[in-house]
Amino acid sequence: MRTMAVIGTGLIGTSVALAVSGRGVTVFLSDRDPAAARTAAALGAGIAGAPTEPVDLAVIAVPPSQVGAVLAEAQGRRLADSYTDVASVKAEPERAALSRAPDPHRYVGGHPLAGRERSGPLAARADLFKGRNWVLTPSPLTSDETFDRALELVALCDAVPVVMRSQDHDAAVAVTSHVPHLMASLMAARLREGPPDLTRLAGQGLRDATRIAGGDSGLWGDILQANAPAIAGVLKDLHMDLSRLVPALDALARPGGQERDHGMRTLVDLLDRGISGLAEIPGARHGASPEDIRVRVAVPDRPGELARVLAAVADLGVAAEDATVQVGAEASGFAVRFTVPPRTADRLVAVLVAAGWDVVRDAAVAAARPGRRPA
Amino acid sequence: MRTMAVIGTGLIGTSVALAVSGRGVTVFLSDRDPAAARTAAALGAGIAGAPTEPVDLAVIAVPPSQVGAVLAEAQGRRLADSYTDVASVKAEPERAALSRAPDPHRYVGGHPLAGRERSGPLAARADLFKGRNWVLTPSPLTSDETFDRALELVALCDAVPVVMRSQDHDAAVAVTSHVPHLMASLMAARLREGPPDLTRLAGQGLRDATRIAGGDSGLWGDILQANAPAIAGVLKDLHMDLSRLVPALDALARPGGQERDHGMRTLVDLLDRGISGLAEIPGARHGASPEDIRVRVAVPDRPGELARVLAAVADLGVAAEDATVQVGAEASGFAVRFTVPPRTADRLVAVLVAAGWDVVRDAAVAAARPGRRPA
Repeated sequence: MRTMAVIGTGLIGTSVALAVSGRGVTVFLSDRDPAAARTAAALGAGIAGAPTEPVDLAVIAVPPSQVGAVLAEAQGRRLADSYTDVASVKAEPERAALSRAPDPHRYVGGHPLAGRERSGPLAARADLFKGRNWVLTPSPLTSDETFDRALELVALCDAVPVVMRSQDHDAAVAVTSHVPHLMASLMAARLREGPPDLTRLAGQGLRDATRIAGGDSGLWGDILQANAPAIAGVLKDLHMDLSRLVPALDALARPGGQERDHGMRTLVDLLDRGISGLAEIPGARHGASPEDIRVRVAVPDRPGELARVLAAVADLGVAAEDATVQVGAEASGFAVRFTVPPRTADRLVAVLVAAGWDVVRDAAVAAARPGRRPA
Repeated sequence: MRTMAVIGTGLIGTSVALAVSGRGVTVFLSDRDPAAARTAAALGAGIAGAPTEPVDLAVIAVPPSQVGAVLAEAQGRRLADSYTDVASVKAEPERAALSRAPDPHRYVGGHPLAGRERSGPLAARADLFKGRNWVLTPSPLTSDETFDRALELVALCDAVPVVMRSQDHDAAVAVTSHVPHLMASLMAARLREGPPDLTRLAGQGLRDATRIAGGDSGLWGDILQANAPAIAGVLKDLHMDLSRLVPALDALARPGGQERDHGMRTLVDLLDRGISGLAEIPGARHGASPEDIRVRVAVPDRPGELARVLAAVADLGVAAEDATVQVGAEASGFAVRFTVPPRTADRLVAVLVAAGWDVVRDAAVAAARPGRRPA
């Protein structure tokens, strides 16, 4: 790939342009706001203006509802040999491409899983996509050449390609992104009500749980609208869960009776379903992985000795799982257990042995344990 | 305060003990699991066992539903002159204290706004409460002496006291903590369903929005049950909002018609309510504060010049708000605007002037702006 065009120099478009410019590709930048394109150019993202001959790939970085029209217009003036977009909804742009674009086999949908809280070209970063998944959704008409160009773009941005059908993509992001956004908005909206001093009780948990609600409402309205069928389905499931939860809490609010037990079971069942759902998220460590190694250390029950063990391994980023008072051989001390990935286990054992502690390295954990700890 | 007792050496109890032990207070530790108390003692949190004479203050660090019974038992054996607890629900323990404890005027409810994802004494930290709010909920019977002891505890833990009525506290945490937890559980539960590869589309937003759902379901069941009336009220409001949102998304899923416009208005209205709710959270910077200063820099439209400005100020943790192409005096360049707190403004201006740029420092921003940026 030698030449590229980026249409729409917001956060994502400018970040794409910065990434590929840095790899030697000549990038032409445009935006319906000429100042945004000039800003991106001034950041080193490329050249503001149209190319004089077709580029290898055009990246359409506009809101989902505009992808179809922008694609048709660009193909009408033969801006590029191949086209992709970066919208976070994929079925609707694909439908528009198949029905309206002059050359639907030159288009493949794309969605890089990256973003920032800030928007606009000034927030762009060349490494925004590094290590992130980048979904490509080829239609039955997408040509091999266009698909290869898009794969090359993903590689130039140091991202990881994930190929899906556009409908599967949209069903997935409804659950992983769009409905969480709406839930965060619903929660955040409640903060305007309630007793005085309410938000003095806001902790990190609330900040994290509501942060995504901060996105621009116009852009998000466009995104959510474009994926309305999938979102409506998930919302209905949630609505049904909530319809069971409200009477459960009502029952728990009334003293005494069998209804309380039933309410408590409904409540704890939901909490447990949530915990097991969390375990689905890659990279979220809830419980050990099957490859993990258990390392046990015998620690004498002398003042400060346990604290010394924890301090010794803190640099490894390792936290102890539990400390149990061992009877028998170590009657007067603790057995502290760590569960860590194999590589870390080697270093952990080395550090502990060097400091003079008794260490037992167990075999790998047989199966992942649930993500719960006793209270 | 010279002596203290901590009943329940989990994460919070052990962290309290570590904090006050470090300030010279003698702390006696107990737990229904003797190994947990010994573990806390081995970490340097105090002495495992009961004091021989009443301590100045006993801190009850057990789940909400057990505070009343533990308080009554401890007062029965005159463990301390004053008593407080650290449960995250306050009306129910207060009711139990007033009805069952031998000495209700020696008790004041407390709730430090701090926690970690891990639990148990090994996760404890002496600085867990540093700078955090710590709610105290004196009842009409609480004595001045007991209230003062609790204030001293808060100070020894480097926390910030917030005094509220127990009912107000519970209404507030229903909104700021308990319902967000349930919403995160509802969302996370949905991750077990949906198309294959669903969680390859999980981004940081989803991780943040669902993280709090990971807490132990037994402990959380106890917490939520103890605050069921307040939670049920908030859930009903949410349920009603959701009942409006589902038909809005349904309307948006159908092509054409006036219903679409109405659906879009309902949707964007919810998103906007969420954004304005977020602005209530202290410390979350959505839009400028009224004291903030606007600093404008004129940047020539030469390759790399804009990037050079951003790089020059990056060390100050300052991000540009926008770059607009200025007509007139700076026709061939950009005006870049930063909005920063007064202290940062001084350093920002100094850095930019030293590097030779044209800088204008405006007066303070008159009023907070909404947390939205154009797409």
